[in-house]
Amino acid sequence: RINGERLWKSLMDLAAIGATEKGGVKRLALTDLDRQGRDLVVRWGREAGLEVTVDQIGNVFMRREGRNPDLFPIVTGSHVDTQPTGGKFDGNYGVLAGLEVIRTLNDRGIQTEAPIEVAFWTNEEGSRFVPVMMGSGVFCGAFSLETAYDARDVEGKSVREELERIGYLGDEVPGRHPIGAYFETHIEQGPVLEDADKVIGVVPAVMGLSWYDCVVSGMEAHAGPTPMGLRRDALQVATTIMQEVVRIANRYPPYGRGTVGMVQVFPNSRNVIPGQVKFSIDLRNVSDALLNTMHEEMLAFVAQAREKSGLAIEVERVSYYPPCPFHPDCVNAVRAATEKLGYSSMDVVSGAGHDAIYAARVAPAGMIFVPCKDGISHNEIEDARPDHLEAGCNVLLHAMLERPGI
Amino acid sequence: RINGERLWKSLMDLAAIGATEKGGVKRLALTDLDRQGRDLVVRWGREAGLEVTVDQIGNVFMRREGRNPDLFPIVTGSHVDTQPTGGKFDGNYGVLAGLEVIRTLNDRGIQTEAPIEVAFWTNEEGSRFVPVMMGSGVFCGAFSLETAYDARDVEGKSVREELERIGYLGDEVPGRHPIGAYFETHIEQGPVLEDADKVIGVVPAVMGLSWYDCVVSGMEAHAGPTPMGLRRDALQVATTIMQEVVRIANRYPPYGRGTVGMVQVFPNSRNVIPGQVKFSIDLRNVSDALLNTMHEEMLAFVAQAREKSGLAIEVERVSYYPPCPFHPDCVNAVRAATEKLGYSSMDVVSGAGHDAIYAARVAPAGMIFVPCKDGISHNEIEDARPDHLEAGCNVLLHAMLERPGI
Ligand SMILES: NC(=O)NCCC(=O)O
Ligand SMILES: NC(=O)NCCC(=O)O
Repeated sequence: RINGERLWKSLMDLAAIGATEKGGVKRLALTDLDRQGRDLVVRWGREAGLEVTVDQIGNVFMRREGRNPDLFPIVTGSHVDTQPTGGKFDGNYGVLAGLEVIRTLNDRGIQTEAPIEVAFWTNEEGSRFVPVMMGSGVFCGAFSLETAYDARDVEGKSVREELERIGYLGDEVPGRHPIGAYFETHIEQGPVLEDADKVIGVVPAVMGLSWYDCVVSGMEAHAGPTPMGLRRDALQVATTIMQEVVRIANRYPPYGRGTVGMVQVFPNSRNVIPGQVKFSIDLRNVSDALLNTMHEEMLAFVAQAREKSGLAIEVERVSYYPPCPFHPDCVNAVRAATEKLGYSSMDVVSGAGHDAIYAARVAPAGMIFVPCKDGISHNEIEDARPDHLEAGCNVLLHAMLERPGI
Repeated sequence: RINGERLWKSLMDLAAIGATEKGGVKRLALTDLDRQGRDLVVRWGREAGLEVTVDQIGNVFMRREGRNPDLFPIVTGSHVDTQPTGGKFDGNYGVLAGLEVIRTLNDRGIQTEAPIEVAFWTNEEGSRFVPVMMGSGVFCGAFSLETAYDARDVEGKSVREELERIGYLGDEVPGRHPIGAYFETHIEQGPVLEDADKVIGVVPAVMGLSWYDCVVSGMEAHAGPTPMGLRRDALQVATTIMQEVVRIANRYPPYGRGTVGMVQVFPNSRNVIPGQVKFSIDLRNVSDALLNTMHEEMLAFVAQAREKSGLAIEVERVSYYPPCPFHPDCVNAVRAATEKLGYSSMDVVSGAGHDAIYAARVAPAGMIFVPCKDGISHNEIEDARPDHLEAGCNVLLHAMLERPGI
């Protein structure tokens, strides 16, 4: 069993770096605060006897040797960067749970068969630099190191120069680092576990995700003198699509998700009929087939709206992450550990993307969820219970031990 | 008959002050450009032998004496300020049509029974200082001089200090200036005349107008991990109200108008379910009874949406202008002049507010509309045909002559 108090204290110590007034954390990727956070975790790693490697995109691997040097390491981790109004647990928990596993093994003098590593990936949040999950994405070859290096923040600073500035531009070629299996503990970021009153979420898969930009173009005109029948009101057409996005998701339960999160109206004036509306569409589901059906239904509805309204409507897919089923061996290891430890649990398909989906492209991978208060994350009021965090870390320890590598 | 070419030339000369690259005009109230525009019109008035009075809110009256000094003047006018991306005709046409009437009377050596005055009212547009139709509003007592003086632009400059700076802080107490009858020529700002291929719009009334701010509050949450059934999506509820606004207007033709022009979504992030949506509602109709019915139906729908969704929904009325029927004598004078001159015409209820609705509170008033291209105004591409502008000015001349004052 791990030491829950020590885990909690480490979480709180790390959360002090970039702490916000409202109890959250603002520690954007590759800022001075991120450097301080990274330095603290690396210091703790070295104090626990770990050997530290940094790759060219700033991913950090901290290694504890196993008995058998020929085995690939069992890796666990997550990220230490946060959202601008982020919480204490998102990402940070996954890294410090890994560190707590190491400390526990040290306490007990247990030597594992395979080496064990704690990793943290660069810029998972994507708040400062796009794309999200950058470090793990480069690692698995989803996009190139050059693409990542060229990403710039709003001030025009590039990932490469910021990595160099904070001292985390490593030598190792990303992806060259061998991984035997990958586990990631994370707060659920949703309300399912709390709603069902379960402690551990066994994560069989991460939903696939399609992001779109939709633009409806009508004709702006004065709200008073323009009769209803002569209007080309872009907002009225856009709202029918916004509602359909939710109806589509509701047609494919339990994992269908449909969200319009971002809307811009032009010219956005009280007495002007909107001439143009831009909005985002976010569709998710657990299988390629279901996600594709949702995609087709959305496009069909848009085509129908275009015809019915006579307005120009453009839809462009701007991101796509395919559904990611985790490796049965890893999922079973998590399930077995949970049962052995006697925690209440259920399967929870992850609705949010995580570094684990990229890790899963290069090694067997799995995830462990713990509840977070009211399902809230990406918010300074994000919260989680110490006993739940301890439970997730215990499950991680035992899942890793169940799985001696490949 | 007035001189259409002279009218057009004056319109183009005035439009040169604050001309924009796209062919529009930017001459915001009480700026240096507004001063130049005012100075030019006043110079033209003096050249035409008019006596100029400025009141304490900067409204300008330019007087041509009549035979009978005991009669109140027949006043015509509009405004010379423009929107930030305004056109050449909105307001400016009404003032220069009045000046062209004077010039025509001078040319013919006609002395009228009642005095004739050309007025321009301060800050009709309300783009720089709120509220709109400020000069005529203070004049008729809709709000106080102090309220108007205290209005500030985004830089914090007040109406009073700007009036003083540009030299248009007059002596006369607003409202003390007697008006026998008021006529205003204006571009329609809508597509009705053009659609029906008519030259003159006889304006029997201006629609009443209710403005609301609506706020729907749900719970922001992550778009991926939050199941559809556990969401409190503020946008999905808001869109039902946005659509109902249009349905309500369609239930009360031909003058019902319903517009949602302004929308703000919080936090407005692609993968966050909207926690709050603020939007504007603009309802209009020609009678108090109809507008009130629309108001009640909107509130009833909101109450129903509140109950059905469980979300907090607030609606606040932020402005109200009652419907303004014009005086039958003035409307008939316009109709008679149009018929006498043989122009094609129709009745067009004004959907937009004008200085004439405030003038109508203190004197018999009427308006004359001419078509504008595609019904577009408050836009640099606003356009109108010289022959239509000439026709409207001829109707103004004859309507004023038909109406010898009270
Ligand atoms: N974990 C997380 O918030 N990932 C961002 C991408 C997503 O919306 O799933
Ligand atoms: N003429 C005009 O645009 N007035 C502004 C108020 C309104 O929306 O009617």
